[in-house]
Amino acid sequence: MTGKLYGIGLGPGDPELMTLKAHRLITGARVIAYPAPDSGESFARSIAAAAIPADAIEIPMIVPMRTERFPAQEVYATAAKQIAAHLHDGTDVLVLCEGDPFFYGSFMYLFARLSEAFGVEIVPGVSSLAGCTAAMQRPLVARNDVLTVLPGPLPDGDLEARVAASEAVAIMKVGRHLSRLRALVERMGLLDRARYIERASLPNQRSMTLADAPDKAPYFSMILINKGTDPWLAQTP
Amino acid sequence: MTGKLYGIGLGPGDPELMTLKAHRLITGARVIAYPAPDSGESFARSIAAAAIPADAIEIPMIVPMRTERFPAQEVYATAAKQIAAHLHDGTDVLVLCEGDPFFYGSFMYLFARLSEAFGVEIVPGVSSLAGCTAAMQRPLVARNDVLTVLPGPLPDGDLEARVAASEAVAIMKVGRHLSRLRALVERMGLLDRARYIERASLPNQRSMTLADAPDKAPYFSMILINKGTDPWLAQTP
Repeated sequence: MTGKLYGIGLGPGDPELMTLKAHRLITGARVIAYPAPDSGESFARSIAAAAIPADAIEIPMIVPMRTERFPAQEVYATAAKQIAAHLHDGTDVLVLCEGDPFFYGSFMYLFARLSEAFGVEIVPGVSSLAGCTAAMQRPLVARNDVLTVLPGPLPDGDLEARVAASEAVAIMKVGRHLSRLRALVERMGLLDRARYIERASLPNQRSMTLADAPDKAPYFSMILINKGTDPWLAQTP
Repeated sequence: MTGKLYGIGLGPGDPELMTLKAHRLITGARVIAYPAPDSGESFARSIAAAAIPADAIEIPMIVPMRTERFPAQEVYATAAKQIAAHLHDGTDVLVLCEGDPFFYGSFMYLFARLSEAFGVEIVPGVSSLAGCTAAMQRPLVARNDVLTVLPGPLPDGDLEARVAASEAVAIMKVGRHLSRLRALVERMGLLDRARYIERASLPNQRSMTLADAPDKAPYFSMILINKGTDPWLAQTP
């Protein structure tokens, strides 16, 4: 019997936004893998830290942090081999994932390498999108609104066409693109409909109008735009 | 001191996909409100049932189930008054929400009526979208993919233009629109890239190609289409 690979969604950052299932599996884990920067602590590990057994084997996947977090394929290839060895021995392996494993997550790089040979179970998590709308304290989409989720690194032309075509827009991975994105939203006349949120659900969470956003944004930041049926302002729709 | 209104995301259906925070708040609740059909049990209440204190005051909001769940404003107006009375008395009130409260949720109708007068806290939950991608066992979006979330009741023309413009698409609220939606996806030549998922995370969950989908779909069903950078098939991207 080989072990099972688990992709565990941890939610946006507050350890209490882990699911009961994620918590149960982590407290019983024997082998845990997680992405980590080349210096400093792993964000995924920090969310789960209080639940990780002291004697669990840990496999940090050190992904170099450059201007973008490009997928460092050699890192995942090496980790996949280490993980496969444990799975072959019949031990389950948990991969800790920020947010939800299949929502723009790096878990896909391990999934692609291991899901043909081993059983995989995904434990979905609270996404960064849900964390940011909660922080914003406004509904993002309602009724028959269309929602478009856009990665911030896309070129202006792509972004503009898609923002124009949707009632609600979430721009992910804002980071170093913030100034360019704010200028784009302003050109489109939507600055008063746009919010900026960073570090949703963490103690240093911030939520403000995009106009008031700082010049520098952390990687975990998002822009939310709503120009649809206006649930933000609706009293008794 | 007035009480606080909580919008509590419960996740897609499996009670273990509740967050630790939702569970903690529910086990300590004194007043709980939730949507319920005019006959049969409340899905939201059923997710949380094991955690609800026996002596909690319950406010079921009976929303008539017709072909669509149209927003029955008089129901929410009445519930808002009942809830406001408890909040005025200084008692917190928890509103149980399937999935995530601000992701196409009916919680917005209470939020619109009560958020000006009372403090509100949103506890984000695992969305139906995250539940369905986990059930599908495939990443939905990766890297710089654009994701479009479309309500199934939209007219064909609207849907077609938006499906054409995205790498990844989630069609929500499939229900009685399934046959029309399947015909549309087939006309667009995307039937082999589309999956159908119903009752994600519940014991009777089903996930299959859209071509194999049944003729009748429950309200809690979704179509997921991926035609982008192909993380579904990627080996070592």
